[in-house]
Amino acid sequence: MVSPPSKEAVGITIKKNEDFSEWYTQVVMKAGLADYAPVKGFIVLRPYGYSIWESIRDILDKRFKETGHQNGFLPVLIPEGLLSKEADHFAGFTPEVFWVTKAGNTDLGEKLALRPTSETLAYSIFAKWITSYRDLPLKINFWNTALRAEIKATKPFVRTSEFLWQEGHTVHATEDEAEREVMSILGIYRELIEDYLAVPAVVGLKSDKEKFVGAKYTTTLEGMMADGKALQMGTSHHLAQNFSKPFEIKYLGRDTKEHFGWQTSWGVSWRLIGAIIMVHGDDKGLILPPKIAPIQVIVVPIHKDKDALVVKETAYEIARELKNVGIRTHVDDRDEYTSGWKFNEWELKGVPLRVNIGARDIEKGQIEFVRRDSRDKVQWPRSGLVEKTNELLREVQKALFARAKLLLDSYTSAPTSYLEFQSFIGDKGGFARAGWCGEPKCELAIKEETGADIRVITFEQNDIPDKCIYCGEAAKKVAMFGRAY
Amino acid sequence: MVSPPSKEAVGITIKKNEDFSEWYTQVVMKAGLADYAPVKGFIVLRPYGYSIWESIRDILDKRFKETGHQNGFLPVLIPEGLLSKEADHFAGFTPEVFWVTKAGNTDLGEKLALRPTSETLAYSIFAKWITSYRDLPLKINFWNTALRAEIKATKPFVRTSEFLWQEGHTVHATEDEAEREVMSILGIYRELIEDYLAVPAVVGLKSDKEKFVGAKYTTTLEGMMADGKALQMGTSHHLAQNFSKPFEIKYLGRDTKEHFGWQTSWGVSWRLIGAIIMVHGDDKGLILPPKIAPIQVIVVPIHKDKDALVVKETAYEIARELKNVGIRTHVDDRDEYTSGWKFNEWELKGVPLRVNIGARDIEKGQIEFVRRDSRDKVQWPRSGLVEKTNELLREVQKALFARAKLLLDSYTSAPTSYLEFQSFIGDKGGFARAGWCGEPKCELAIKEETGADIRVITFEQNDIPDKCIYCGEAAKKVAMFGRAY
Repeated sequence: MVSPPSKEAVGITIKKNEDFSEWYTQVVMKAGLADYAPVKGFIVLRPYGYSIWESIRDILDKRFKETGHQNGFLPVLIPEGLLSKEADHFAGFTPEVFWVTKAGNTDLGEKLALRPTSETLAYSIFAKWITSYRDLPLKINFWNTALRAEIKATKPFVRTSEFLWQEGHTVHATEDEAEREVMSILGIYRELIEDYLAVPAVVGLKSDKEKFVGAKYTTTLEGMMADGKALQMGTSHHLAQNFSKPFEIKYLGRDTKEHFGWQTSWGVSWRLIGAIIMVHGDDKGLILPPKIAPIQVIVVPIHKDKDALVVKETAYEIARELKNVGIRTHVDDRDEYTSGWKFNEWELKGVPLRVNIGARDIEKGQIEFVRRDSRDKVQWPRSGLVEKTNELLREVQKALFARAKLLLDSYTSAPTSYLEFQSFIGDKGGFARAGWCGEPKCELAIKEETGADIRVITFEQNDIPDKCIYCGEAAKKVAMFGRAY
Repeated sequence: MVSPPSKEAVGITIKKNEDFSEWYTQVVMKAGLADYAPVKGFIVLRPYGYSIWESIRDILDKRFKETGHQNGFLPVLIPEGLLSKEADHFAGFTPEVFWVTKAGNTDLGEKLALRPTSETLAYSIFAKWITSYRDLPLKINFWNTALRAEIKATKPFVRTSEFLWQEGHTVHATEDEAEREVMSILGIYRELIEDYLAVPAVVGLKSDKEKFVGAKYTTTLEGMMADGKALQMGTSHHLAQNFSKPFEIKYLGRDTKEHFGWQTSWGVSWRLIGAIIMVHGDDKGLILPPKIAPIQVIVVPIHKDKDALVVKETAYEIARELKNVGIRTHVDDRDEYTSGWKFNEWELKGVPLRVNIGARDIEKGQIEFVRRDSRDKVQWPRSGLVEKTNELLREVQKALFARAKLLLDSYTSAPTSYLEFQSFIGDKGGFARAGWCGEPKCELAIKEETGADIRVITFEQNDIPDKCIYCGEAAKKVAMFGRAY
């Protein structure tokens, strides 16, 4: 039997809790999710990685359409003059903009930015499309990539100079309606992240310092990774009239007067794949939540030469039964690899459930399930295949969320003094729930001294501590501080 | 009733046969398909235009996956050094490449090209992924955009400096297998274009002068537009080992020796939307083939105030029945517009079938269908709704193809002398089927004198004329000449 392991099939050679960063890179590469591109800071998605993105995209796309959004397309190039029209926005993005200055051998008159985000381009065009209240609300989403030249250390999915994402842009007749849109999208993101990706999210507002440049306010979903660092997983911004005024997005109201539109923008990116890896993965590799796994069940026929035919046929039959009820199933019928090699590979790739089937199982009328999360084995009558598979997939989904919730809780502390705060953040990381006076200077000092910033000011503002954790003045809010990716 | 027409709702103000180019632009803009972007040569897709692209994408994506292809993602930036690795290829694309030379305020060491196509980037990475015959075939598709700075006059969908497309890239163990892939993809494209878009395609080979730079040969699907100009609708290339050698895509064979891979690449773009418009549209606007129409049936309730409720309810019922069997249906229940205004708008937008429903129809237990292609009206019993709708949609689909085939035939001539050739091409355009000696110098002379080049050398090579239409030497092939977009 020929079985020299191909590059990605070699297992993870380091433990998750020994060198988290190296472990992460190995999972990305060896599970066949992504690879480095020739330009520093850029990555390529391999089919397995892309299919996870397709799962995420399909879930969101359906929800966006159900809630009255439509997709459109915008070019990747934005003239400098347009990008600079909203001053704060421009100042925020310009240090990381890639600039096109030549076409062929010709120098361009005006530099063109590669889209760092499309507010300015979209809104210059929306202004032409909107004339009356009948054109509102306008709710358009774009599936594309954004480009931001990263100077910090890059990390596949988490920090790359180009990333796949969606950016939604809406215009409404009233401020209230825009606010409802911001919250409705936040709800859709939360559903995706918690119910599908099995990652608990801490939701709330960004501080003014951390909000989107140009927004009135930014809502965010923050996750806790297994190394105690936070990850911003999605944001939904209320733009008020900050863009509609410079871009002149005006509509004639029922009152026959002209009004500026109220706007929102929002996005999630392939960072979510990073979150899945960092939250759920283990020393064996990736673990995918069943609801978004491109392959939910891998069937491995285990046989000697003489039994090959009957065992393989049974494996196909099992796969057919599962596929018939919509379970994404694949049979690994490759002859060039041993069963042990296959087990390792599919564990590495994080397939949530494996079905082993051999000649003895067939005789006994049974199958063997192996759960990826717990690696528990279950023997089960063949006749109960579909039911048991569905049950186990549901259980794995639930168990992953529960484990991630434990992780989040174990990483959430409530220091009562700045000394305690420093020791929590410095020691194990995580979220420190603390009182804040509301002054940017305290926020900044904490960031400089501990590396932690305000990740999120939760919507629930119960039990606000009396004092600001830094200056000791009266606290106005309770905030979740943390070091973040 | 408030009904100032919004911009796009104003009908087409010019006839298709009066000023084809102006008519085309009006259809694109007024049907709400696309709009100009701020940078010359770039367009924005409005939701209606994008949803046609989504239809096309979904059909192809399904077929690609059924035939063992997977999607991936590549960055948009390619280092100059990599792009120049295959010399012919580089020479072909470099005049129209957009170059990134700066990131933020920093000048880059090496210029980065915005992908004009991804052969070089993909293959530099494929080389790392492929080590043995077990890694083959590798069949990856990318849904993205390509960027080519157009210096000629641009035209929405047909010639733009950035365009949505898919590019497939495959590596095979043998030349034969790559050839089968080239033809299999050509078949998928033909099925899309003829069976779904209802546009007849003339398929065959490009001449060496017209083939893809770097390919061994290029197969093509050419369409005939309503103004007598040809449109290249898709290409599928056999790359032989022209890229695998410079990029060192090698595999260890079963024979334990190293071999270079055999490759193909292929693509279609949003040009196909241009083809649909130019082939099927009429003086009233767009006409969409039912199989790819985002809205297949538009239901318009026609009522006075007193009947509004019951008529609208019936309209929703009709829509529900149709949606239940998978027919893409929309009810235009807007009160601010008259029925006549709605009829015009949906005709402009090319919805293949309209259902009118009024109080008298309800009394009589009937509905009225209006076909977009022929504008024929049909009264039909309400009970036969679903069946008749399906029948009419099939009929419209067939009729559009038949009409397009007539167009193609009426534009195909077989001149027997160069004088006749010149007069055909100069007069009404279309395809001139003519003998060719196989020499590039004749091809070039014809191009210079008439503007027509060899669009396609059909696979069927029956009835080859005796002589080359230009030089009079013995013809080796029969070719379809034409002026093209």
